[in-house]
Amino acid sequence: MNVIALLTDFGISDSYVGEMKGVISGIAPQAPLIDISHAIPPGDISAGALMLWRAFGAFPPGTIFLGVVDPGVGTSRRSIAARIDDKVVVCPDNGLLSYLLHAGRDACIVELKDREDHAAPISRTFHGRDIYAPAAAHLAAGAKFDSLGPAVKNPRLLPVPELVPENETVRGTVMQADHFGNLTTSIGLLRSDRLGLNVDPWCRQAPQTRLEGQKFEVILPGGAVPLCGTYADVPHGTPVAYIGSAGLLELGIRGGSAAKLLQLEQGAPIILERKA
Amino acid sequence: MNVIALLTDFGISDSYVGEMKGVISGIAPQAPLIDISHAIPPGDISAGALMLWRAFGAFPPGTIFLGVVDPGVGTSRRSIAARIDDKVVVCPDNGLLSYLLHAGRDACIVELKDREDHAAPISRTFHGRDIYAPAAAHLAAGAKFDSLGPAVKNPRLLPVPELVPENETVRGTVMQADHFGNLTTSIGLLRSDRLGLNVDPWCRQAPQTRLEGQKFEVILPGGAVPLCGTYADVPHGTPVAYIGSAGLLELGIRGGSAAKLLQLEQGAPIILERKA
Amino acid sequence: MNVIALLTDFGISDSYVGEMKGVISGIAPQAPLIDISHAIPPGDISAGALMLWRAFGAFPPGTIFLGVVDPGVGTSRRSIAARIDDKVVVCPDNGLLSYLLHAGRDACIVELKDREDHAAPISRTFHGRDIYAPAAAHLAAGAKFDSLGPAVKNPRLLPVPELVPENETVRGTVMQADHFGNLTTSIGLLRSDRLGLNVDPWCRQAPQTRLEGQKFEVILPGGAVPLCGTYADVPHGTPVAYIGSAGLLELGIRGGSAAKLLQLEQGAPIILERKA
Repeated sequence: MNVIALLTDFGISDSYVGEMKGVISGIAPQAPLIDISHAIPPGDISAGALMLWRAFGAFPPGTIFLGVVDPGVGTSRRSIAARIDDKVVVCPDNGLLSYLLHAGRDACIVELKDREDHAAPISRTFHGRDIYAPAAAHLAAGAKFDSLGPAVKNPRLLPVPELVPENETVRGTVMQADHFGNLTTSIGLLRSDRLGLNVDPWCRQAPQTRLEGQKFEVILPGGAVPLCGTYADVPHGTPVAYIGSAGLLELGIRGGSAAKLLQLEQGAPIILERKA
Repeated sequence: MNVIALLTDFGISDSYVGEMKGVISGIAPQAPLIDISHAIPPGDISAGALMLWRAFGAFPPGTIFLGVVDPGVGTSRRSIAARIDDKVVVCPDNGLLSYLLHAGRDACIVELKDREDHAAPISRTFHGRDIYAPAAAHLAAGAKFDSLGPAVKNPRLLPVPELVPENETVRGTVMQADHFGNLTTSIGLLRSDRLGLNVDPWCRQAPQTRLEGQKFEVILPGGAVPLCGTYADVPHGTPVAYIGSAGLLELGIRGGSAAKLLQLEQGAPIILERKA
Repeated sequence: MNVIALLTDFGISDSYVGEMKGVISGIAPQAPLIDISHAIPPGDISAGALMLWRAFGAFPPGTIFLGVVDPGVGTSRRSIAARIDDKVVVCPDNGLLSYLLHAGRDACIVELKDREDHAAPISRTFHGRDIYAPAAAHLAAGAKFDSLGPAVKNPRLLPVPELVPENETVRGTVMQADHFGNLTTSIGLLRSDRLGLNVDPWCRQAPQTRLEGQKFEVILPGGAVPLCGTYADVPHGTPVAYIGSAGLLELGIRGGSAAKLLQLEQGAPIILERKA
């Protein structure tokens, strides 16, 4: 039975996530349910899209992603399912696929129209429970993707951070802090690029995150930090840049919180620069 | 294998929920475990009872609910299991069934007496792990409900908010805020009632939450808000009343937090009124 | 299929736990996944070791514990798997086994060397996903423990709180507060010891937590509290000592938070004393 992986902005203090899982268990009782996170800031589609991109590669073929960050629930925004590689994402058509579909990656998208797939009645404020969870569960239980509804050609996509490569530098931005205070940036690097400084990260899978050398540094608003292999390469309390586990450049402090110490806001400019 | 759905006030920072699930997995390893929530305020039986009522309808027949909000653990309060419709709730007899059993809904209740169902030894402070989890797991593994213990005729019930219907109005109260800042009230409305203003919500299943028209408004301490179909029916930043996904009247603000903006405490009076 | 029980300091706001589970589901899709907690303070190996000890006994034979509190990720610290009783712990070799292995309990430990068990490529900052999760999943899927790598004879162990028994007293310390504000101490007592005051708790299983009498009191920096059977044995708002569900002496306040009211820091000295 295919895994259903859940990503929402519902938090975990209410019963909303549980209600979605209850509905799923009535349709596909054997489907393993895995939480990616329910801590997306309320209504922050962009943050949800980034996390969906990040987690996507860790799940096996056949996984059905149930992504519900849905500030437009009850409006005319469409509900869709997208087949990307050998996985499926069920979500509102509001930009949650922006990172996954960046740079033209192939996807087959349909609009969720088959109301027999849905619990009755459908509330106007909780389509996660009443539309998306049933659709994901029916897919897990064997429903054919193409049977869900008509094809969608123009899914809604949000702008994603663009990298600005120059001669020996690439400019990006700080994107977000994680639980440990490590700062993810928009700069992605792959080993196969041999640090070519000309990489768009969003459509890549299986990033190679070991750097060949230490020939680079990262210029922040407050100074420069070295590009190392990991935060364990510097002394405790020292800021460092490294390629994180999603293939993106991160800023960290060994044994500390870069978010607290560096005080960089989301969107703060950073520059990766080849050392002279 | 029947689902076991867990609802507690244990939080998720300690190992308590994990220990309960560990015990279950030793007895009923195939039972899917679904968390409703573990964020009930410590000891708040009434909040637990409301969430249990809310989530109940989303789960399939055969579900075993494991509800542990148990400030009286170690006292003489009884431990019970209740068969309601085609589901079972295992919990302390302290009022957690108050909403589910409101208005005389049928339930078959037994006291948990069969100590062979229990892990040995039984602690005096963690019956969730030592009594309720084993009982739920044995039920999931096929134990007969009637074998759990003797019948209970008078389960403890807490008072639930009463609605006060008058000619063209119904008076209720604000109950709680959710993760998004939407405020749930005690007023329940079903489409089948055609807005008859005379509805007791607590024993209903499958609420019909689409309003036929917009002939009502909701009077708050600070003014009136329109009754609409959903928060998406009003401009961003505007307060609105609507029937939420549990069939209860809610107060929200499109793209914002009604809890923050309206500043209504739990218990604040509200009136649903037919427009002149 | 054996249960995999997860304990980390990852929090649940990022996708890290979900990514680990995604990797597991690709290798051992049928393995039930149970969260112990992901709220260990970042990098606090000692707190992780204590919770691992505490939760260990609640899980059935065959359980595979996946413990990732790993501030040394990317350094030369080893990765290990330990067979203890009839369960296995997969974790970094940094002291997470300190309580489980205290007092010389038998364990068979191997270093994780078989890189075919690992997803490729291996990041330098997320061995939970790239090394530990795959190892646990392969064990759940039937891999032989001995095949994981060469034997380890000297796992890293941290000092654990020592009890200082004297004639009629035993000295210990406050260890941590739980979600309810109950304070766990380092003093463990078993019924089989008949309150002999000379007990080392860390290697015991299945503690007997009912006290035979009330012949003891607990001396705190601010005064004495009685040793009772449970907090329900005293009036609301009253401090009390009792043997908690892990077999350790705890300090609580019925209907309140001992952590808030008693203001005892981690490490504060306490004395269990036979009453005159």
